[in-house]
Amino acid sequence: MNLLQQTIEKVEDLDQEMLVKARERVDSLIKPPKSLGKLEDIAVQLSGITKELFPAVDQKVMIVMAADHGVYEEGVTSNPQEVTIEQTLNIAKGITGVGTIAKVSGAKIVAVDIGIKEDIPSDAGVIIRKIKKGTDNMAKGPAMTREEAIKALEVGIEIATKEIQQGANLLGTGEMGISNTTPSTAILSVLANCDPKEITGRGAGLGKGGLVHKIEVIRNAITINQPNSADGIDVLAKVGGLEIGGMAGVMLAAAANRVPVVVDGLISTASALIATTIEPKVKDYLITSHATDEPGGKKASELLGKEPMLKMNMCLGEGSGAALAFPIIEAACSMMKNMPTFEDVGMSI
Amino acid sequence: MNLLQQTIEKVEDLDQEMLVKARERVDSLIKPPKSLGKLEDIAVQLSGITKELFPAVDQKVMIVMAADHGVYEEGVTSNPQEVTIEQTLNIAKGITGVGTIAKVSGAKIVAVDIGIKEDIPSDAGVIIRKIKKGTDNMAKGPAMTREEAIKALEVGIEIATKEIQQGANLLGTGEMGISNTTPSTAILSVLANCDPKEITGRGAGLGKGGLVHKIEVIRNAITINQPNSADGIDVLAKVGGLEIGGMAGVMLAAAANRVPVVVDGLISTASALIATTIEPKVKDYLITSHATDEPGGKKASELLGKEPMLKMNMCLGEGSGAALAFPIIEAACSMMKNMPTFEDVGMSI
Repeated sequence: MNLLQQTIEKVEDLDQEMLVKARERVDSLIKPPKSLGKLEDIAVQLSGITKELFPAVDQKVMIVMAADHGVYEEGVTSNPQEVTIEQTLNIAKGITGVGTIAKVSGAKIVAVDIGIKEDIPSDAGVIIRKIKKGTDNMAKGPAMTREEAIKALEVGIEIATKEIQQGANLLGTGEMGISNTTPSTAILSVLANCDPKEITGRGAGLGKGGLVHKIEVIRNAITINQPNSADGIDVLAKVGGLEIGGMAGVMLAAAANRVPVVVDGLISTASALIATTIEPKVKDYLITSHATDEPGGKKASELLGKEPMLKMNMCLGEGSGAALAFPIIEAACSMMKNMPTFEDVGMSI
Repeated sequence: MNLLQQTIEKVEDLDQEMLVKARERVDSLIKPPKSLGKLEDIAVQLSGITKELFPAVDQKVMIVMAADHGVYEEGVTSNPQEVTIEQTLNIAKGITGVGTIAKVSGAKIVAVDIGIKEDIPSDAGVIIRKIKKGTDNMAKGPAMTREEAIKALEVGIEIATKEIQQGANLLGTGEMGISNTTPSTAILSVLANCDPKEITGRGAGLGKGGLVHKIEVIRNAITINQPNSADGIDVLAKVGGLEIGGMAGVMLAAAANRVPVVVDGLISTASALIATTIEPKVKDYLITSHATDEPGGKKASELLGKEPMLKMNMCLGEGSGAALAFPIIEAACSMMKNMPTFEDVGMSI
């Protein structure tokens, strides 16, 4: 049995008894019931995940998967492809959006080359797990083979599992990959069964003519490849990306190891949809962060069935929105740990 | 000239030159322009406020104003009035919603008795600046005199100014006062010129019959007192509250001293509307945090003209939502300080 299959089989339901216990505790704290809204829900979810009434999220790790896309050659983006490698090097240095935001909550950044076109220097602080030098052009055929898709998921599983073994108790998912709103939108179109026109956006600064072309490219990729929407691996292989697979693997590993994992914007949500198509129970281990400004974002959140907490008009990617949610999750833990019950303080209501 | 007048006259516009400079800097950082949305806007606003290109928010103070309300006797809430003093004591201990959330960002909590009905122990860690033992019942006449309203504003100014003198560079506003959604909704009705029915909510757990009664009480209070919507002090005096005035004072002092101040939910937003009616320039110094679940929240944000960042379904008050926004504001500063420009890293786009 391969690593992916083992991981899927390890994913269990949340601890139902602990969910009840945590909800009872939250409802007894010195505040009107439900008055802390989603903060309470996160606290309860964390208890159900970790089987702890007072879970901690003091070791936060943001895993950023980087890869290139063959569909770049169709002209679906206004950015040069070299930005993938250049920005991945900057992400590893902690100086980009995700790093400067993650600094606030003391999260560690782990940058992974899972399929960048160019060779990355071995001393750049990037973990090199390159599956191939970018995907193939999905407008002409599948982005990758099924074996490569499984390998991408397994790289994510391996990276996440290692971090969890080293003590990580909160993971985040981020990415870097020029053109990756194109495969993400294709995945969403397939899984939501909707026309790309409804959900395609301009990514990092595409003009109006470019947008029409991008929609056409996504439609063609779906028509040519005919991905099976019931098979997450098939969708990932045919119209996905290596970093999208890597992030989905991180989510599968988090669920298998009972660790919460934060979803970022459009691309990370596409990964979440792949992961939950492969194993629906993964959903209970996910925490969504921000509502991306990309038009597909709303649809993606609806399909995932999880409403984001932050409305920041952000669309950077990299895991920047997930990193911004880390302190909110810490606050949920702090509420649970540091707020007494009415009984504790001798109040009657 | 009294302290209030002096403070109002000290409020200046944001530094226009610095706003331009900060926006140029933000647009040159290694990310697609505008891709960090509101985080970028906050960074620019902070520069305009502080006249610093790289402002810091490393000394955060949450000022929680506590007071009682004469309108309590109309039966507008399901909670006993003693909760005001009991919970204020807990707030000073840092164990309530605002304290456990503020712990995450290391913010200091300053609890102020500006008008609690009962005497508060002098060793409870609460600053005692009681103007009167709760407001008068606004359903029968003005909640307080104009002099008392000015005094409430001035207590807020004094408390905030002292914290700023001691180094605070980010303030938050919170409150505790059983029944205070009633005066807040009255203020909002007057300033938004709308019927209380449109915006009245259940506060901390009122039943359906209670809601109809609460609407009636608010309508009557407005009819009896005829507050002048162009005069913030008049509205505060007639249908406001002492803690609402205190928070408005904090906002005025923050603006006068060029320090950003975070608005919380419904009650704090009512304070913001009082402060901006008194001096419209205060608005530029405000940062809104979360969209409260109280029905008046949306109207209040629209009237203030500032969209909240967090959608947490929270309605606790105390400054809990403002405290949750502190790390987001830190992230904006971190982006500004720690992210290089394209030129710095030698990238061409």
